[in-house]
Order: sequence, then C-alpha cells, then structure tokens
Amino acid sequence: MHTLLILSSEQKTYRSIIGSANPPDLKIISEPSDECDILLGDPSLIRRALASLPNLKWVQSIWAGVEPLMDPALKRDYILTNARGVFGQLMSEYVLTYLLARERKIFHLRQLQTEKQWDDSNNGTLRSRTIGLLGVGSIGADVARMAKFFGMTVRGYTHSREESADVDEYFHGDSLMEFAGGLDYLVNILPSTKATHGIINADLLNALPNHALFINVGRGSAVDESALVEALTQNKIAGAVLDVFQQEPLPKDHPFWETPNLTITFHTAAPSLPEDIAGIFIENYRLYIEGKPLKYRVDFEKGY
Amino acid sequence: MHTLLILSSEQKTYRSIIGSANPPDLKIISEPSDECDILLGDPSLIRRALASLPNLKWVQSIWAGVEPLMDPALKRDYILTNARGVFGQLMSEYVLTYLLARERKIFHLRQLQTEKQWDDSNNGTLRSRTIGLLGVGSIGADVARMAKFFGMTVRGYTHSREESADVDEYFHGDSLMEFAGGLDYLVNILPSTKATHGIINADLLNALPNHALFINVGRGSAVDESALVEALTQNKIAGAVLDVFQQEPLPKDHPFWETPNLTITFHTAAPSLPEDIAGIFIENYRLYIEGKPLKYRVDFEKGY
Repeated sequence: MHTLLILSSEQKTYRSIIGSANPPDLKIISEPSDECDILLGDPSLIRRALASLPNLKWVQSIWAGVEPLMDPALKRDYILTNARGVFGQLMSEYVLTYLLARERKIFHLRQLQTEKQWDDSNNGTLRSRTIGLLGVGSIGADVARMAKFFGMTVRGYTHSREESADVDEYFHGDSLMEFAGGLDYLVNILPSTKATHGIINADLLNALPNHALFINVGRGSAVDESALVEALTQNKIAGAVLDVFQQEPLPKDHPFWETPNLTITFHTAAPSLPEDIAGIFIENYRLYIEGKPLKYRVDFEKGY
Repeated sequence: MHTLLILSSEQKTYRSIIGSANPPDLKIISEPSDECDILLGDPSLIRRALASLPNLKWVQSIWAGVEPLMDPALKRDYILTNARGVFGQLMSEYVLTYLLARERKIFHLRQLQTEKQWDDSNNGTLRSRTIGLLGVGSIGADVARMAKFFGMTVRGYTHSREESADVDEYFHGDSLMEFAGGLDYLVNILPSTKATHGIINADLLNALPNHALFINVGRGSAVDESALVEALTQNKIAGAVLDVFQQEPLPKDHPFWETPNLTITFHTAAPSLPEDIAGIFIENYRLYIEGKPLKYRVDFEKGY
C-alpha cells in the first residue's frame, strides 16, 4: 500500500480525478503523516511540508518550475518529477496571442473604434517574421512548431541537443548576440538556473532591432529588470510582454507597472490544469509501482 | 501584343512587380483605351471603366469579392477571374487573433494592468472548443486547418462539395440550426450571393449558445444587422467581431459603433497584398496567352 499526500489549492479536484482512475494500492491523505511516501502538489506548499515527511520517496510537482525545492538546505533524498508536455499548447497560444495582437494592432484598432474612426490601412502578418527562442525544450519545440505553421523563420538558442526540426537555425554558447540580431520576436522559455540568471541583460537587449518585441514566459530571474525598463523607456526595443517576474505577485511599487510599451500578465500563460497534471501523476504512479524509471525526473544539480 | 490596364490605388507597385517579371507581348497602360484587352484592378474602379473598354477580353480582380461587377446592367462579355488562394493565412490569422483575444481575455488583463491588479485566475484555451465555418471554400479550408492545429472541433456548413479533411462534421441545406447549436465560435466566410443574403438572422443567432462569439470575415450582406444589434444588446450571444458591413466605411451614425460586446475592424482582415495578387495575374497571363482556361474564374450566375 502507498500513501499519497496532495498539497494544492485544487486538492479536491485532484482527489476526484485521481480517485476515479482507481490507481491500485493507493491511499490518499490530506495532511502530512509518517506513512506518506508520495506527494503531489504545488512546490511552494511542498517546501514547507518536506521536514515532516520522513518516509517520502517521490514528489510529483504540479508545476514545471521547481525552484522552491532547489534550496540546498532542503532534503533531497527523494525522486522529484515535474510537469512537462502539457504546457506546450498553452504557452504557444499565449505567445501567439501577443504576436497577433501586435501584428493586427488590436489595441490600436479598439481605440479607433471608440473614436468611430474607419481606418483601412493594412496590418501585418506572421508570415516571414523571425522569432528567436531562448530555450528549446519540449515547450520551445511546441512554440517552434506553431511558428512554422504560420510561415515564420525560427531561431533557437539552447544548451541542449538540437532536437526540434522546426527550428531553422540553432545557436549555442557564445553566439547569443548573433542569435539576437535581426529578430522580430524574442521569446524566453528558459528554466531558472544559475546559467540563465540575468541572461536578458542590456547587451542582449541592445543586440535586438528597435522594432523587436520581447516575450518572457520562462522565469523572471532570466531578466535584468532595470536593463529592460531602460530599453523600453529609451525605445531600444518596441515592447515587452511579461508573464513572469523576479518577485510575484509583482509589487505595487515596481517600475514595470508604469513602463511604456510593457504588457503585464500574471503568471497565467500556461496554467497547470488538474485534468492534465493528474494524467501525468497517474502515468508516473504506474511506473512507480512497477519499479520503473519515472517520467520528467528533475536533476537537483541542474535545477530542471 | 496584349494591352493591360491597371486600375488600383497601388498601380505603381503593380506595374513595377509585373514589369519586372517580363511577361511576353504585354504593354501596360494607365488610362482606358480601345486597345485594352486585359484589366487588372479593384472591382469598384473596374465597374466605372467597363463601358469605355470595347475590346475587353479578361478582367483579373485584385479582390476576392466581385459584387460591383455583378450588376446585371453591366456588360458580361469577358472572362472574370478573382483573387483566391492568397487570403487563407491572412484570414486565419485574423480569426485566430480574436479567438485568442477572447480566450486569453487580453482587453480585461490590460485593464487589470492599468489598475495594478495582480489576478492569476486561469484563462481559456482553444483546445476542445467548437468552431463552425459558414462557407468552406479555399479560405474556409485554411481556417479549418488552423483550428485543427489547435485541437478544436470543426463544423462546416457549405453548398459545395466536402473538400476539406480538416472539417470534422459537414452540414448542408436545411441543417443550419443544427450546425449552429453548441458552437463556441461561428465564423462567416460566405461570398455575397442571393442565397447568403441575410443568412445570419435572428433565428440563427438564437440557435447559438449564449457564450458564442460571432466573427464575420465574409461579406456584410450576410448579416441581418438589426437582428445582430438585438442579439448583442440582449446578451443572446457573448460578442461579435465584424470586419465587413452592408455599407463601408461604416456610417458614423450606425448603431454598431455603440453596440455592446461588438468589435469593429475596417475590412482589413485579409488585405490584397500586391506581391500576392501580381503573382496570380502573372500565372493567369501565361495561361491566357497559351489559350488555356484561367484560374479562379468567376461564374456571373453564382456570383463567385
């Protein structure tokens, strides 16, 4: 018999979905207990519970990002798996939403409508635009596939292998500035690690064309926030769309709220939908009871 | 030797693109003349020139819609071809822009941003939504392909053959109300003909679910405009996005400007880009001088 603790604001939904799949030999509990060997939940809640779970063997994060569990002061004697594979379409839709909002000038058109101004000047298309992906993991590959569907040119910057055939040109290591030159769109999808900390800095922003739009759906730590405020204020780039920040919720006195050409969303680009995440858990639970390697295992050294 | 008259506000661009392709035995002129046998242009300008072109053999419209030339009082002793095949991606992008703007609540999020309100409640996705296409020609097939790419369910209502494999379920003739029931999105792509006049009327709007969004990228004549104002004012449907109108530009005193949940754009969903249209003309000109059937010929009886 295994004992699963669920720590999430959507605990009831998870309990219902997982319960109805009848996973064998599994008892579900709601409070930390010595008997608990499996934990499913939100990494920020898991972090607080770790010390009171002496027999923990496996943690399934409901998020892709597991930074709260990377603190070296925390125990690491368990298998950590995260959520992957389900965010690709959601992230692609988010990126596409803001690419199209820009090409189709929808905020401008909405303003013209309120002024009863008919203006039939042409607008743009995604076809032949160049998009650069900072990070080409499974989400990056999905964004690349979407970009190719619309006839865009796709560049990818990655520390990993060149796995997506939808990327037209790969860049690695020192070629970051070369990667940025000439982009219409720069999209950050990198996880939060030491190597990616502050990678979007003044040098990178200066390497982008003035008309470029920067979209961050990775992690806030990748951005030098004051360099971005300066680039936007001085029109070095045309705009930015940020879903993630160094501090979330974004503090009321943060300069981003008043920075020109900056769109803020609330870490909602790719929500963890319980029906998706429960599916990952159930699949991994089957592997767990069979003693097989779990999917989406996190390497504590790499941080992803 | 053939003589081509170009009637378009972008005449110079067309002249330059076509000239640089060096079509054999072709003289290009800018004013109506007896020697003109070929005309390329904007149907509203062509309409006025028809009477002064006694030797006209072939007209290539730069638009998809050719209503100005369908008046039975006008001469019809020439071959009329329109522009097709180039609007699919532009139309798909337009439709997708407003599908995503709605799912991702971007106007609402913009408002929250101005109020410095962090609100991380989840938003929607296109996956599993149902879209109904009124009209499944080449543009409809492109919109269907885009919808399937994002995992939507696609219904098609058409008078023609069932040519797109991306349509999950086809409807014909009397099954219009059945087609409309349960749609999340209704998109009109029908050409302007007698059969499509006023097809989006109170009955059809009543058959849609309350949460449905209606998008019109076909022709304004397909919509019973007062029925639509009523459906929106009484929240019978959630919203409408209109790019085409019975009268364009939309008159300043038209009720649409002040109708709730109505988004107006300015017949700019799929602009005729000269590089696209010149390509169609050049291909058809080669067929014309070889005496072969031209592509995209319009049937004066059907009106498309």
